[in-house]
Amino acid sequence: MIHDLAVLGAGPGGFEAALAASRAGLKTALVEKDELGGVCLNRGCVPSKLLLGALCPAEELRALGRAGLCRAEFRPDLAAIRARSQRIMAATRKAMAKRLAEAGVDVVRGQGALFGPNRLLVETPEGQKDIEFKDLILATGSRPAMFPGLEADNENVLDSSAFLDLDRPPASLIVVGAGFIGLEMACMAHLLGAEITLVDALTRPAAGEDPEVSAEIEAACRRRGWDLRLGVRVESLATGQGQAKLVLKGGETILAHKALAAVGRTPNSQGLGLEDAGMALEGPGWVRTDQNLMASANAYAVGDVNGRLLLAHAAADQARYAVRRVLGLEKGPYAPGPVPSVIYGSPEVLRVGAMAAELKAQGKSPEVSRAALAANPIAQAHAAPQGLVKVVWLDGRVAGVTAVGFEVSRLTGTAMAAVTGSWTRQRAEAAIFAHPTLDEALREALLAERTRA
Amino acid sequence: MIHDLAVLGAGPGGFEAALAASRAGLKTALVEKDELGGVCLNRGCVPSKLLLGALCPAEELRALGRAGLCRAEFRPDLAAIRARSQRIMAATRKAMAKRLAEAGVDVVRGQGALFGPNRLLVETPEGQKDIEFKDLILATGSRPAMFPGLEADNENVLDSSAFLDLDRPPASLIVVGAGFIGLEMACMAHLLGAEITLVDALTRPAAGEDPEVSAEIEAACRRRGWDLRLGVRVESLATGQGQAKLVLKGGETILAHKALAAVGRTPNSQGLGLEDAGMALEGPGWVRTDQNLMASANAYAVGDVNGRLLLAHAAADQARYAVRRVLGLEKGPYAPGPVPSVIYGSPEVLRVGAMAAELKAQGKSPEVSRAALAANPIAQAHAAPQGLVKVVWLDGRVAGVTAVGFEVSRLTGTAMAAVTGSWTRQRAEAAIFAHPTLDEALREALLAERTRA
Repeated sequence: MIHDLAVLGAGPGGFEAALAASRAGLKTALVEKDELGGVCLNRGCVPSKLLLGALCPAEELRALGRAGLCRAEFRPDLAAIRARSQRIMAATRKAMAKRLAEAGVDVVRGQGALFGPNRLLVETPEGQKDIEFKDLILATGSRPAMFPGLEADNENVLDSSAFLDLDRPPASLIVVGAGFIGLEMACMAHLLGAEITLVDALTRPAAGEDPEVSAEIEAACRRRGWDLRLGVRVESLATGQGQAKLVLKGGETILAHKALAAVGRTPNSQGLGLEDAGMALEGPGWVRTDQNLMASANAYAVGDVNGRLLLAHAAADQARYAVRRVLGLEKGPYAPGPVPSVIYGSPEVLRVGAMAAELKAQGKSPEVSRAALAANPIAQAHAAPQGLVKVVWLDGRVAGVTAVGFEVSRLTGTAMAAVTGSWTRQRAEAAIFAHPTLDEALREALLAERTRA
Repeated sequence: MIHDLAVLGAGPGGFEAALAASRAGLKTALVEKDELGGVCLNRGCVPSKLLLGALCPAEELRALGRAGLCRAEFRPDLAAIRARSQRIMAATRKAMAKRLAEAGVDVVRGQGALFGPNRLLVETPEGQKDIEFKDLILATGSRPAMFPGLEADNENVLDSSAFLDLDRPPASLIVVGAGFIGLEMACMAHLLGAEITLVDALTRPAAGEDPEVSAEIEAACRRRGWDLRLGVRVESLATGQGQAKLVLKGGETILAHKALAAVGRTPNSQGLGLEDAGMALEGPGWVRTDQNLMASANAYAVGDVNGRLLLAHAAADQARYAVRRVLGLEKGPYAPGPVPSVIYGSPEVLRVGAMAAELKAQGKSPEVSRAALAANPIAQAHAAPQGLVKVVWLDGRVAGVTAVGFEVSRLTGTAMAAVTGSWTRQRAEAAIFAHPTLDEALREALLAERTRA
């Protein structure tokens, strides 16, 4: 059967692409070897937020308890949380399948591979299916990266998927990698009562964020009594005698009940015939795309697999662009404007738009202004006064916002408005912020004195 | 001494006005008979949020417990919460005083009254002070309204200020008035374990909000087992034999440990010589203002006392406008655009811009689109799936947003952007929402099918 569009991978990018294309009248096939929803729904953003949500009172009760405002006991039931997460994810997959069916998408379950630029062979339980197509959207995503000596065996050394499948909390956890996945999961394990050792080769956690944000995160880790090892190299991480055993370069050994390897992600681009179909791979296999997200003459690559931004909402936005372009509704290059990014857990981190270091690296002269959360009544109400909001200015206009602290993801909407609207100080003064809200910390930062970054 | 500007009242409006004026070079006097910060800081928004914040785990633990995800015990210490609130409020007042002093504002403590259009006499502890001024900003605020037979004696029948001063939670509470103050305080008492009876003469709670919002609130009240009496008239409410005794028209009597009278607010405009200074009062004493917020040839009235919008952030915005106008920087009428309004507690309510009924009353033909929170992963993560987001459209553009449910105040920033930017469907499609966030429920509502309201 000949399709106008074939979509390979049914994660946030592929699902959105197939739905939009079919609704717009394209005969569309969606090929998925695993579950609908991809890593995000099944092994990433969603189950981690379901777990964090169920653990959320733990952090809050500790803060209120330290302030002497309550006595509390909180015993989360990890097995029940996990079972409920599975039910919610199954219901979401069912709803996704229904929406795809209603939109008329041909969903093909099986491992697909390209044979040339217009043909996809899929190994399904019912045998091989041959799909011919005019255009292709590749959305095969990514998986946890592994390095020699640092492989998850999923006995005592886990990857992020296996971590989310735990039925009982570990008494102690070594986390290798202090990026957003490592930080979120270390936080969850901490809230479940685990002793945490957090290790990274870089000298600050969340090294992709603003240095002031990293400093706040580091302080939060130390306040909780985590064993934080920054700027250290790992010799090996392996299961031994029912424990996880971490050996650092230099010989020091650290033992824990479990370990999590969270050292980045790697693209799913192998064994798919991508090169034969005219695509080029870079580094560990990221699919090279041009300014129109095109990976070949008739194929787009969207989401993690193109290595641009490993965020579910970026994948979905790229997918919508690609479909508009296939439909001839879009001529310009892909230029999505700022994409918000959030690290959950405690503290939360928000980033929208450009950071000061990034602009300076481009030879520009940004200014910054900032406000501490300490004086904000909502942060005070939750006994969580640590953290700050930082605004990056370029030529008198807001170029970026970042924040770290209690529930700073709440600032996303206003931060997006300020960055996409290139707010001046005058525009910020005219904006009405509800009182009392956490958002007012952003107002304070917008109106604070600016200094050269 | 002659001042360029006198400001009467140091609540959110007066404080903001005095600070802005003095920083801009005007010789400014700020007169306050009570504490800096007004009702908002001392007896309203701030202490209520400090209390709600400290009680916040209670609701969440109940929801998670019902879903079988944890076992928990939570015993808030109301006396400790109140003592901490007092410390925070005192620190905030001190910080305000410092900012006023640094800006060079003459702060005069005492009861002030106007003598003609350019003179203010203030009874201070050190004797009478005579302040002459060119311009005046009146920002004297409001207080709880009382009706015959429904007066707070602050023994067992409380007003909102006395409620926030309770050191021990009542075992049972009658709340007369299901507006935002009554609802927030009923919610707090409920979280503290009180049995709630909620009474209103109108047939739905939060009657100023969209009817669908009221329906969700009513359902939430009933789920919690509150005794909800809507559309009933109160004969009397009084203290008797150490209890609060409510008698309804028709004769039914309801007893409770305490009662709260929350039947609206009334302006502080008596005994200030306002009429002698050329101002006109309406209804219970709201100060009449023109399109420039002017109450007389040289006086502005901002905040609650003008009866426009009884919200702290509206007062502050009006104050900034009035100061700009005094400075000659502003010629046009006061046109602030949408002012967000939030009801805290559980469920939360958010409103930005126009509601459907409001537009229909103007003879317009709005459309609405909506999304339930039930499918949102963050609402699911907190086991709080009730509620909805509703978007009001006029001529294909967003005119208003309202929402009710778990933490919907989070949607404020994006809702403000959509309303102030008059988003079309196409603009909404292009907006990138972080995943997973509660904000995505707003995205879903923006992109849902529209129907005639």
